[in-house]
Amino acid sequence: MDAHLLCVAQTTKMLRNLAAWLKEAETFAGEKGFEADRWLEMRLAPDQYGFARNVQAACDTAKFLAARLADIEAPSHPDDEKTMAELHERIAATIAFIEGVKSFDGAEERKIVLPFLPEGTWVTGQEYAVSFAVPNFYFHVTTAYAILRDKGVALGKRAFIGAMDVKAG
Amino acid sequence: MDAHLLCVAQTTKMLRNLAAWLKEAETFAGEKGFEADRWLEMRLAPDQYGFARNVQAACDTAKFLAARLADIEAPSHPDDEKTMAELHERIAATIAFIEGVKSFDGAEERKIVLPFLPEGTWVTGQEYAVSFAVPNFYFHVTTAYAILRDKGVALGKRAFIGAMDVKAG
Repeated sequence: MDAHLLCVAQTTKMLRNLAAWLKEAETFAGEKGFEADRWLEMRLAPDQYGFARNVQAACDTAKFLAARLADIEAPSHPDDEKTMAELHERIAATIAFIEGVKSFDGAEERKIVLPFLPEGTWVTGQEYAVSFAVPNFYFHVTTAYAILRDKGVALGKRAFIGAMDVKAG
Repeated sequence: MDAHLLCVAQTTKMLRNLAAWLKEAETFAGEKGFEADRWLEMRLAPDQYGFARNVQAACDTAKFLAARLADIEAPSHPDDEKTMAELHERIAATIAFIEGVKSFDGAEERKIVLPFLPEGTWVTGQEYAVSFAVPNFYFHVTTAYAILRDKGVALGKRAFIGAMDVKAG
Protein backbone atom coordinates (compact mmCIF):
# COMPACT_ATOMS: atom_id res chain seq x y z
CA MET A 1 0.00 0.00 0.00
CA ASP A 2 1.33 3.45 -0.91
CA ALA A 3 0.18 5.36 2.17
CA HIS A 4 1.43 8.73 0.91
CA LEU A 5 -0.65 8.34 -2.23
CA LEU A 6 -3.77 7.34 -0.27
CA CYS A 7 -3.39 9.69 2.70
CA VAL A 8 -1.74 12.77 1.21
CA ALA A 9 -1.82 12.99 -2.59
CA GLN A 10 -5.47 12.26 -3.25
CA THR A 11 -6.91 14.03 -0.21
CA THR A 12 -4.95 17.28 -0.59
CA LYS A 13 -5.77 17.41 -4.30
CA MET A 14 -9.49 17.02 -3.60
CA LEU A 15 -9.41 19.49 -0.69
CA ARG A 16 -7.89 22.09 -3.02
CA ASN A 17 -10.63 21.32 -5.55
CA LEU A 18 -13.18 21.77 -2.75
CA ALA A 19 -11.73 25.19 -1.90
CA ALA A 20 -12.10 26.17 -5.58
CA TRP A 21 -15.80 25.15 -5.51
CA LEU A 22 -16.29 27.35 -2.44
CA LYS A 23 -14.92 30.26 -4.44
CA GLU A 24 -17.31 29.49 -7.29
CA ALA A 25 -20.18 29.42 -4.79
CA GLU A 26 -19.07 32.80 -3.42
CA THR A 27 -18.96 34.26 -6.93
CA PHE A 28 -22.43 32.85 -7.62
CA ALA A 29 -23.75 34.45 -4.41
CA GLY A 30 -22.27 37.78 -5.48
CA GLU A 31 -23.90 37.55 -8.92
CA LYS A 32 -27.29 36.62 -7.48
CA GLY A 33 -27.01 39.12 -4.63
CA PHE A 34 -27.27 36.87 -1.58
CA GLU A 35 -24.98 36.47 1.42
CA ALA A 36 -22.39 33.79 0.55
CA ASP A 37 -22.42 32.42 4.11
CA ARG A 38 -25.94 31.19 3.47
CA TRP A 39 -24.28 28.25 1.64
CA LEU A 40 -23.22 26.78 4.99
CA GLU A 41 -26.78 25.63 5.77
CA MET A 42 -27.76 24.47 2.29
CA ARG A 43 -28.45 20.75 1.97
CA LEU A 44 -30.09 18.08 -0.19
CA ALA A 45 -32.58 16.07 1.91
CA PRO A 46 -33.63 17.86 5.13
CA ASP A 47 -32.23 15.01 7.24
CA GLN A 48 -28.82 15.00 5.53
CA TYR A 49 -25.76 17.00 6.59
CA GLY A 50 -25.68 20.58 5.30
CA PHE A 51 -22.87 22.06 3.24
CA ALA A 52 -20.66 23.20 6.14
CA ARG A 53 -21.00 19.85 7.92
CA ASN A 54 -19.94 18.04 4.76
CA VAL A 55 -16.87 20.26 4.41
CA GLN A 56 -16.00 19.66 8.08
CA ALA A 57 -16.50 15.90 7.71
CA ALA A 58 -14.34 15.76 4.58
CA CYS A 59 -11.59 17.66 6.41
CA ASP A 60 -11.84 15.45 9.50
CA THR A 61 -11.82 12.25 7.50
CA ALA A 62 -8.69 13.32 5.61
CA LYS A 63 -7.03 14.55 8.82
CA PHE A 64 -7.70 11.36 10.78
CA LEU A 65 -6.68 9.17 7.85
CA ALA A 66 -3.25 10.79 7.80
CA ALA A 67 -2.91 10.95 11.60
CA ARG A 68 -3.98 7.38 12.31
CA LEU A 69 -1.84 5.87 9.57
CA ALA A 70 1.17 7.92 10.71
CA ASP A 71 0.37 7.11 14.38
CA ILE A 72 0.44 10.75 15.45
CA GLU A 73 -2.04 13.06 17.18
CA ALA A 74 -4.46 14.96 14.94
CA PRO A 75 -5.05 18.65 15.67
CA SER A 76 -8.47 19.44 17.14
CA HIS A 77 -11.02 21.31 15.03
CA PRO A 78 -14.26 22.02 16.93
CA ASP A 79 -16.54 22.35 13.85
CA ASP A 80 -17.57 25.87 14.73
CA GLU A 81 -17.10 27.49 11.32
CA LYS A 82 -19.80 30.09 10.65
CA THR A 83 -18.56 31.70 7.41
CA MET A 84 -17.16 30.72 4.04
CA ALA A 85 -13.88 32.39 5.08
CA GLU A 86 -13.70 30.07 8.10
CA LEU A 87 -14.38 27.04 5.92
CA HIS A 88 -11.48 28.11 3.71
CA GLU A 89 -9.28 28.32 6.83
CA ARG A 90 -10.40 24.87 7.94
CA ILE A 91 -9.52 23.38 4.57
CA ALA A 92 -6.14 25.15 4.53
CA ALA A 93 -5.32 24.00 8.08
CA THR A 94 -6.23 20.42 7.15
CA ILE A 95 -4.02 20.47 4.06
CA ALA A 96 -1.14 21.97 6.06
CA PHE A 97 -1.40 19.24 8.71
CA ILE A 98 -1.58 16.41 6.16
CA GLU A 99 1.33 17.72 4.11
CA GLY A 100 3.41 18.02 7.28
CA VAL A 101 3.16 14.31 8.11
CA LYS A 102 6.68 12.92 7.97
CA SER A 103 6.36 9.14 7.86
CA PHE A 104 3.80 6.43 7.24
CA ASP A 105 6.14 3.59 8.17
CA GLY A 106 4.16 0.53 9.18
CA ALA A 107 0.83 2.10 8.18
CA GLU A 108 -0.50 -0.89 6.27
CA GLU A 109 -0.51 -3.34 9.18
CA ARG A 110 -0.96 -0.82 12.01
CA LYS A 111 -3.83 -1.66 14.38
CA ILE A 112 -6.37 1.16 14.06
CA VAL A 113 -8.93 1.54 16.85
CA LEU A 114 -12.00 3.46 15.75
CA PRO A 115 -14.35 5.25 18.17
CA PHE A 116 -17.44 4.02 16.34
CA LEU A 117 -16.50 0.32 16.47
CA PRO A 118 -17.08 -1.96 19.51
CA GLU A 119 -14.49 -1.74 22.29
CA GLY A 120 -11.65 -4.19 21.92
CA THR A 121 -11.87 -4.32 18.14
CA TRP A 122 -9.59 -2.87 15.47
CA VAL A 123 -8.92 -2.84 11.74
CA THR A 124 -5.64 -2.78 9.85
CA GLY A 125 -4.40 0.52 8.48
CA GLN A 126 -5.06 -0.69 4.96
CA GLU A 127 -8.61 -1.82 5.76
CA TYR A 128 -9.32 1.49 7.51
CA ALA A 129 -8.01 3.49 4.55
CA VAL A 130 -9.65 1.61 1.71
CA SER A 131 -12.84 0.33 3.34
CA PHE A 132 -13.69 3.38 5.39
CA ALA A 133 -11.67 6.59 5.16
CA VAL A 134 -11.28 6.96 1.40
CA PRO A 135 -14.95 6.24 0.55
CA ASN A 136 -16.09 8.41 3.48
CA PHE A 137 -13.85 11.25 2.32
CA TYR A 138 -15.18 11.12 -1.24
CA PHE A 139 -18.72 10.80 0.10
CA HIS A 140 -18.54 14.14 1.88
CA VAL A 141 -16.58 15.89 -0.87
CA THR A 142 -19.06 14.72 -3.50
CA THR A 143 -22.07 15.64 -1.36
CA ALA A 144 -20.65 19.14 -0.81
CA TYR A 145 -20.21 19.42 -4.58
CA ALA A 146 -23.74 18.08 -5.21
CA ILE A 147 -25.28 20.66 -2.87
CA LEU A 148 -23.64 23.55 -4.75
CA ARG A 149 -24.35 21.99 -8.15
CA ASP A 150 -27.96 21.21 -7.26
CA LYS A 151 -28.54 24.81 -6.11
CA GLY A 152 -27.25 26.35 -9.32
CA VAL A 153 -23.48 26.83 -9.11
CA ALA A 154 -22.06 26.12 -12.58
CA LEU A 155 -19.67 23.34 -11.56
CA GLY A 156 -18.78 20.54 -13.95
CA LYS A 157 -16.86 17.29 -13.89
CA ARG A 158 -13.65 19.12 -14.79
CA ALA A 159 -13.97 21.16 -11.58
CA PHE A 160 -14.61 17.98 -9.60
CA ILE A 161 -11.61 16.11 -10.96
CA GLY A 162 -9.18 19.05 -11.04
CA ALA A 163 -5.76 19.07 -12.62
CA MET A 164 -3.93 15.99 -13.93
CA ASP A 165 -0.23 15.67 -14.58
CA VAL A 166 -0.49 15.19 -18.36
CA LYS A 167 2.66 14.38 -20.29
CA ALA A 168 3.40 14.71 -24.02
CA GLY A 169 5.53 12.60 -26.35
CA MET B 1 1.16 1.69 -5.60
CA ASP B 2 -0.96 -1.34 -4.74
CA ALA B 3 -2.91 -1.64 -7.97
CA HIS B 4 -5.05 -4.54 -6.78
CA LEU B 5 -6.18 -2.48 -3.81
CA LEU B 6 -6.98 0.55 -5.97
CA CYS B 7 -8.44 -1.24 -9.00
CA VAL B 8 -10.13 -4.30 -7.51
CA ALA B 9 -10.68 -4.21 -3.75
CA GLN B 10 -12.23 -0.78 -3.37
CA THR B 11 -14.23 -0.75 -6.59
CA THR B 12 -15.81 -4.20 -6.18
CA LYS B 13 -16.71 -3.44 -2.57
CA MET B 14 -18.44 -0.21 -3.56
CA LEU B 15 -20.17 -1.82 -6.55
CA ARG B 16 -21.62 -4.47 -4.22
CA ASN B 17 -22.78 -1.67 -1.90
CA LEU B 18 -24.36 0.03 -4.92
CA ALA B 19 -26.25 -3.16 -5.81
CA ALA B 20 -27.57 -3.24 -2.21
CA TRP B 21 -28.85 0.35 -2.54
CA LEU B 22 -30.67 -0.64 -5.73
CA LYS B 23 -32.43 -3.37 -3.77
CA GLU B 24 -33.42 -0.83 -1.10
CA ALA B 25 -34.78 1.43 -3.83
CA GLU B 26 -36.79 -1.47 -5.25
CA THR B 27 -38.22 -2.25 -1.80
CA PHE B 28 -39.10 1.43 -1.34
CA ALA B 29 -40.88 1.45 -4.71
CA GLY B 30 -42.86 -1.63 -3.68
CA GLU B 31 -43.88 -0.01 -0.39
CA LYS B 32 -44.94 3.24 -2.08
CA GLY B 33 -46.59 1.44 -4.99
CA PHE B 34 -44.63 2.80 -7.95
CA GLU B 35 -42.74 1.04 -10.72
CA ALA B 36 -39.14 0.51 -9.52
CA ASP B 37 -37.75 1.15 -13.00
CA ARG B 38 -38.79 4.77 -12.61
CA TRP B 39 -35.62 5.18 -10.54
CA LEU B 40 -33.53 5.02 -13.71
CA GLU B 41 -34.54 8.55 -14.75
CA MET B 42 -34.45 10.17 -11.30
CA ARG B 43 -31.82 12.90 -10.90
CA LEU B 44 -30.77 15.86 -8.74
CA ALA B 45 -30.36 18.96 -10.96
CA PRO B 46 -32.14 18.64 -14.34
CA ASP B 47 -28.83 19.05 -16.19
CA GLN B 48 -27.04 16.34 -14.19
CA TYR B 49 -26.85 12.65 -15.07
CA GLY B 50 -29.83 10.58 -13.97
CA PHE B 51 -29.61 7.52 -11.73
CA ALA B 52 -29.05 4.93 -14.47
CA ARG B 53 -26.36 7.05 -16.12
CA ASN B 54 -24.53 7.38 -12.80
CA VAL B 55 -24.62 3.60 -12.30
CA GLN B 56 -23.33 3.08 -15.85
CA ALA B 57 -20.58 5.66 -15.37
CA ALA B 58 -19.50 4.12 -12.05
CA CYS B 59 -19.33 0.69 -13.73
CA ASP B 60 -17.41 2.04 -16.73
CA THR B 61 -14.94 3.95 -14.59
CA ALA B 62 -14.19 0.86 -12.49
CA LYS B 63 -13.96 -1.34 -15.60
CA PHE B 64 -11.58 0.96 -17.47
CA LEU B 65 -9.46 1.52 -14.37
CA ALA B 66 -8.83 -2.22 -14.11
CA ALA B 67 -8.45 -2.76 -17.87
CA ARG B 68 -6.08 0.13 -18.51
CA LEU B 69 -3.86 -0.62 -15.54
CA ALA B 70 -3.71 -4.30 -16.51
CA ASP B 71 -3.20 -3.36 -20.18
CA ILE B 72 -6.04 -5.55 -21.40
CA GLU B 73 -9.19 -4.92 -23.44
CA ALA B 74 -12.32 -3.94 -21.49
CA PRO B 75 -15.60 -5.62 -22.45
CA SER B 76 -18.09 -3.35 -24.25
CA HIS B 77 -21.25 -2.26 -22.43
CA PRO B 78 -23.52 -0.11 -24.63
CA ASP B 79 -25.34 1.72 -21.77
CA ASP B 80 -28.75 0.47 -22.90
CA GLU B 81 -30.08 -0.67 -19.52
CA LYS B 82 -33.79 0.07 -19.19
CA THR B 83 -34.67 -1.73 -15.95
CA MET B 84 -33.35 -2.16 -12.43
CA ALA B 85 -32.75 -5.85 -13.25
CA GLU B 86 -30.51 -4.80 -16.15
CA LEU B 87 -28.61 -2.39 -13.89
CA HIS B 88 -28.01 -5.29 -11.49
CA GLU B 89 -26.67 -7.35 -14.42
CA ARG B 90 -24.40 -4.48 -15.47
CA ILE B 91 -22.95 -4.20 -11.97
CA ALA B 92 -22.47 -7.98 -11.72
CA ALA B 93 -20.76 -8.13 -15.13
CA THR B 94 -18.44 -5.30 -14.13
CA ILE B 95 -17.48 -7.01 -10.87
CA ALA B 96 -16.88 -10.31 -12.69
CA PHE B 97 -14.59 -8.64 -15.23
CA ILE B 98 -12.60 -6.75 -12.59
CA GLU B 99 -12.19 -9.80 -10.36
CA GLY B 100 -10.97 -11.80 -13.35
CA VAL B 101 -8.02 -9.50 -14.06
CA LYS B 102 -4.88 -11.57 -13.58
CA SER B 103 -2.00 -9.11 -13.30
CA PHE B 104 -1.30 -5.44 -12.78
CA ASP B 105 2.44 -5.76 -13.39
CA GLY B 106 3.90 -2.41 -14.41
CA ALA B 107 0.64 -0.56 -13.75
CA GLU B 108 2.16 2.33 -11.84
CA GLU B 109 4.40 3.61 -14.64
CA ARG B 110 2.32 2.42 -17.60
CA LYS B 111 1.55 5.13 -20.17
CA ILE B 112 -2.21 5.59 -20.19
CA VAL B 113 -3.74 7.34 -23.19
CA LEU B 114 -7.17 8.80 -22.45
CA PRO B 115 -9.75 9.58 -25.14
CA PHE B 116 -10.66 12.90 -23.51
CA LEU B 117 -7.09 14.25 -23.42
CA PRO B 118 -5.31 15.91 -26.39
CA GLU B 119 -3.78 13.54 -28.96
CA GLY B 120 -0.17 12.66 -28.23
CA THR B 121 -0.53 13.08 -24.48
CA TRP B 122 -0.65 10.50 -21.69
CA VAL B 123 -0.59 10.09 -17.93
CA THR B 124 1.07 7.46 -15.76
CA GLY B 125 -1.03 4.60 -14.44
CA GLN B 126 -0.72 5.98 -10.94
CA GLU B 127 -1.77 9.49 -11.97
CA TYR B 128 -4.73 8.10 -13.93
CA ALA B 129 -5.85 6.00 -10.96
CA VAL B 130 -5.49 8.55 -8.19
CA SER B 131 -6.15 11.82 -10.03
CA PHE B 132 -8.94 10.67 -12.28
CA ALA B 133 -10.43 7.19 -12.02
CA VAL B 134 -10.83 6.81 -8.25
CA PRO B 135 -12.42 10.26 -7.69
CA ASN B 136 -14.58 9.82 -10.79
CA PHE B 137 -15.72 6.40 -9.57
CA TYR B 138 -16.68 7.72 -6.14
CA PHE B 139 -18.32 10.75 -7.75
CA HIS B 140 -20.80 8.59 -9.66
CA VAL B 141 -21.34 6.10 -6.83
CA THR B 142 -22.03 8.93 -4.37
CA THR B 143 -24.31 10.76 -6.80
CA ALA B 144 -26.31 7.56 -7.38
CA TYR B 145 -26.61 7.22 -3.59
CA ALA B 146 -27.59 10.88 -3.19
CA ILE B 147 -30.38 10.56 -5.77
CA LEU B 148 -31.96 7.64 -3.89
CA ARG B 149 -31.37 9.28 -0.50
CA ASP B 150 -32.72 12.63 -1.66
CA LYS B 151 -35.89 10.99 -3.02
CA GLY B 152 -36.69 9.20 0.21
CA VAL B 153 -34.91 5.81 0.31
CA ALA B 154 -33.81 5.23 3.92
CA LEU B 155 -30.09 4.83 3.22
CA GLY B 156 -27.50 5.83 5.81
CA LYS B 157 -23.75 6.12 6.05
CA ARG B 158 -23.49 2.48 7.12
CA ALA B 159 -25.06 1.42 3.82
CA PHE B 160 -22.67 3.69 1.93
CA ILE B 161 -19.54 2.36 3.63
CA GLY B 162 -20.56 -1.30 3.77
CA ALA B 163 -18.75 -4.05 5.64
CA MET B 164 -15.32 -3.69 7.22
CA ASP B 165 -12.99 -6.50 8.20
CA VAL B 166 -13.08 -5.83 11.96
CA LYS B 167 -10.77 -7.88 14.19
CA ALA B 168 -10.91 -8.50 17.94
CA GLY B 169 -8.17 -8.93 20.54
